[in-house]
Amino acid sequence: MDTAFRLDIALIHYPVVNKKQETIGSAVTNLDLHDIARAGRTFGVGTYWVVTPYKQQQELTASIAGHWTNGYGGTVNPDRANALSIIQIRACIEQVLTDMHKQDGKEPLVVATSASQLVATISYSALQSELQKGRTVLLLFGTAWGLTQEVIELADVALPPITGSGTYNHLSVRSAASICLDRLCGHRENMV
Amino acid sequence: MDTAFRLDIALIHYPVVNKKQETIGSAVTNLDLHDIARAGRTFGVGTYWVVTPYKQQQELTASIAGHWTNGYGGTVNPDRANALSIIQIRACIEQVLTDMHKQDGKEPLVVATSASQLVATISYSALQSELQKGRTVLLLFGTAWGLTQEVIELADVALPPITGSGTYNHLSVRSAASICLDRLCGHRENMV
Repeated sequence: MDTAFRLDIALIHYPVVNKKQETIGSAVTNLDLHDIARAGRTFGVGTYWVVTPYKQQQELTASIAGHWTNGYGGTVNPDRANALSIIQIRACIEQVLTDMHKQDGKEPLVVATSASQLVATISYSALQSELQKGRTVLLLFGTAWGLTQEVIELADVALPPITGSGTYNHLSVRSAASICLDRLCGHRENMV
Repeated sequence: MDTAFRLDIALIHYPVVNKKQETIGSAVTNLDLHDIARAGRTFGVGTYWVVTPYKQQQELTASIAGHWTNGYGGTVNPDRANALSIIQIRACIEQVLTDMHKQDGKEPLVVATSASQLVATISYSALQSELQKGRTVLLLFGTAWGLTQEVIELADVALPPITGSGTYNHLSVRSAASICLDRLCGHRENMV
């Protein structure tokens, strides 16, 4: 995609599910911030929303991002500062939606991602078309064992799971987000 | 790709370059093992070769992989055991090539990856064709600031860098490997 588009991503730390499908809150991890910010910056993401209701986790996130943007890290590695500058911290998805609405006066198309096949899916190419038509899109990624049912229902649509030729599809959220962004926004002239 | 293919990947910890393009050896990291093994397992990789000449790093790698395959980790998370079971540790690329040759009597096509545009590139679709024709392929990924010139010259060809619409392409090796495997082996029926 070469046209301007508005694509944000949100990494959800609460509410997500654990292995037993119970609702939990997960901890923010350093590499989720770095890897997904770097992929986001590479593929033209506007804002990478880090969603956690826990005050200490918000402070930890701000401290990591701050080290690499305004702090010492940014002076020795400006590329990392560039990437981590797209991070914004919010307590819940509703706050993200409110702030996105304030920014451009439009409701974003909210898109869930999951390793399971969900109903109401949108294909990657259909979502690319929405972006090209100027629709603002928010992609939701779940940490731990993924988004809760209530978050999936809050989303307008869902992307199909990422799979290879087999049935194994236990990707890290860092890998899944990177692949998803490449499928939507990667320069594909190199493919042929 | 639905046909059987033989694709291995190698994560190189020595020789790689640092920010100043000096040759260094990097440390094995836990998440490079997990994330790339999980992506490898998802996309049908045969063996994920972890290449480091340092004995303590080899032991650390074996200890992490062992915890998740034969140890306690594997009993609580069999999916992780499944992924990390594709890891093999070798001291240098030459050992990997020798062992791949022993396994099926054929020289693999050695493919370098880089965030820079190299000469002698092969497109993703041409490499897919090679895999579909039954050619054994070994993809090389560099840690730190990437593969050294000598490793790139040892490779037969190189894949073009992964980019979005802009010029920023500082992906983590975990993201780059995941995207590269998806481009080569991802199920693309979901794309349309």
